[in-house]
Amino acid sequence: MRRTWTVGVDFGGTNVKIGLVTATARVHRTLVVASKDVATPTAFINGICDVVNSLARSIGIRASQLRGVGVGAPGPVDVTHGIVHSLVNVPGWRQVSLRRPLERRLRCPCLIDNDANLFTIGEWRAGAGRGARALVGLTLGTGVGGGLVCDGALYRGASGSAGEVGHMVIHPQGWRCGCGRRGCLEAHIGTRAILRLAREAVRRHRAALWALAQRAQLTPELVSRAAEQGDASARTVWVAVGRSLGIGLANLVNLLNPDRIVIGGGVAQAWRWFAPTMRKTVRHEAMAISQRAVGIVRGRLGSEAGIIGAAVGLWQERRTARR
Amino acid sequence: MRRTWTVGVDFGGTNVKIGLVTATARVHRTLVVASKDVATPTAFINGICDVVNSLARSIGIRASQLRGVGVGAPGPVDVTHGIVHSLVNVPGWRQVSLRRPLERRLRCPCLIDNDANLFTIGEWRAGAGRGARALVGLTLGTGVGGGLVCDGALYRGASGSAGEVGHMVIHPQGWRCGCGRRGCLEAHIGTRAILRLAREAVRRHRAALWALAQRAQLTPELVSRAAEQGDASARTVWVAVGRSLGIGLANLVNLLNPDRIVIGGGVAQAWRWFAPTMRKTVRHEAMAISQRAVGIVRGRLGSEAGIIGAAVGLWQERRTARR
Repeated sequence: MRRTWTVGVDFGGTNVKIGLVTATARVHRTLVVASKDVATPTAFINGICDVVNSLARSIGIRASQLRGVGVGAPGPVDVTHGIVHSLVNVPGWRQVSLRRPLERRLRCPCLIDNDANLFTIGEWRAGAGRGARALVGLTLGTGVGGGLVCDGALYRGASGSAGEVGHMVIHPQGWRCGCGRRGCLEAHIGTRAILRLAREAVRRHRAALWALAQRAQLTPELVSRAAEQGDASARTVWVAVGRSLGIGLANLVNLLNPDRIVIGGGVAQAWRWFAPTMRKTVRHEAMAISQRAVGIVRGRLGSEAGIIGAAVGLWQERRTARR
Repeated sequence: MRRTWTVGVDFGGTNVKIGLVTATARVHRTLVVASKDVATPTAFINGICDVVNSLARSIGIRASQLRGVGVGAPGPVDVTHGIVHSLVNVPGWRQVSLRRPLERRLRCPCLIDNDANLFTIGEWRAGAGRGARALVGLTLGTGVGGGLVCDGALYRGASGSAGEVGHMVIHPQGWRCGCGRRGCLEAHIGTRAILRLAREAVRRHRAALWALAQRAQLTPELVSRAAEQGDASARTVWVAVGRSLGIGLANLVNLLNPDRIVIGGGVAQAWRWFAPTMRKTVRHEAMAISQRAVGIVRGRLGSEAGIIGAAVGLWQERRTARR
């Protein structure tokens, strides 16, 4: 019997989303657990196993009959041994072996990989990156993650941490980053940077819409909505984000000469506001020959990219392992 | 009969160096032609053929008995078709087919590739990059070139121009680059930047040695020599170069997680003056996990790196083609 169902796990800062994925890379059913409820390794393993078992039951199979379970973790991962080196913003995760205990309990193949790598694999195989030979995947959110496909294979680097686009320094005297350095791409286009730009814009412009917006909590979505409603100050925020992102992308284009760049993550929802400046900056800052080769597109898997990527990543890994 | 001799051609801004390379990647004999004498494609092909024929004669064989001829060109190259897209700083080279005419005239296999790619291949296979799986090669000079080895193979990107580290923007409000943009790595550590830093240092410090130095033409070597002689202002120049180079390297380390970075080119002769600041900056700016994996070393092939790289590149290409 060919195993058709896979479970993808998207371990985010707020929620852990666990989804049943079909053989055609569609999400059939999703369950969500609050990240704070599974914040320790033991709680995480227990929580995942419970949810995977109940998802399997819901379609009348056992977990051991799944094609496998893929887990995307927000931090550097040793894929070969299934070990999470550490997690961004979650203390207590140091060299945590996840794959072994999950495989023992669920009795199906498991994969642990970095979430940005899985996003990239998912979009590459089942989304907006299809057919690309050299692809860069970017996730925009609180953090800025990335994954690289070189010559038709995910490129992991010497110790598995390749693709850290978020900590490319684009401005040596720039803003302070969560990593302690200055001027990282993440420090200039991550959620915190967007909110900082927004607060500055509010102070400068005192636009009516913004005054309204201030009653609610400031979020990137709110900045998008204000832009939508014609607020000029909100639009300047996205122009600034587009400019910094464009510089980062131009560096990637010059260095890696990809044929596709796929951009996802929550902040990509503001695509129409930052994309024009982003494209203009890449046109201006990247070399002609490399620039002509690249298509810069928005991810197609949306909020399910993490779940689908984790499932597709598992398929890929199994395929490579069988060779 | 196994063909033992290869010719490597290093097409530089001032000279074209053509060397006979042994089967163990050593340069046996070199002839030099002024670049201005072979500045047009026809003159170049004629000149190269003359020199290759005379080098072959000098060891008692014909050019057709060579293992092949490898040519490194300072610009983007279509390796598959042996076409030079353009040359940096040399007008009149647009889509020039070099491999076909050279092969027809010399009757041996020829390879045309980008010079920084060939530098990287040479150091990787026969120099300081031996054994690396993920390697970045950098050449420091008038321009700053680069080559990438990913998962044990040279990575060329979608249109053959991957590895352009020189035009990575490290400072959006930085110095104007020859490419028209601002703040490229090359604009901050290329020869012109070094001389600019040196002139500023002279103006600020009025050091005795510098006064002396000013009688001769200012060159990076002179700045090195002044540093050697204890001139503090000359040392500040190399500290500035080391800092900018370090930022560029930290970005490469974060992005590509290489196990080795090999640095060559004329300016690498000032290694002892810029390397300490370069290393300190990488330690400070790159992520711990990637930083621990990388060794940053000076190229071992020195001024022969271009010739040896061109020869080794030809061997590699022939090996890949035979597979």
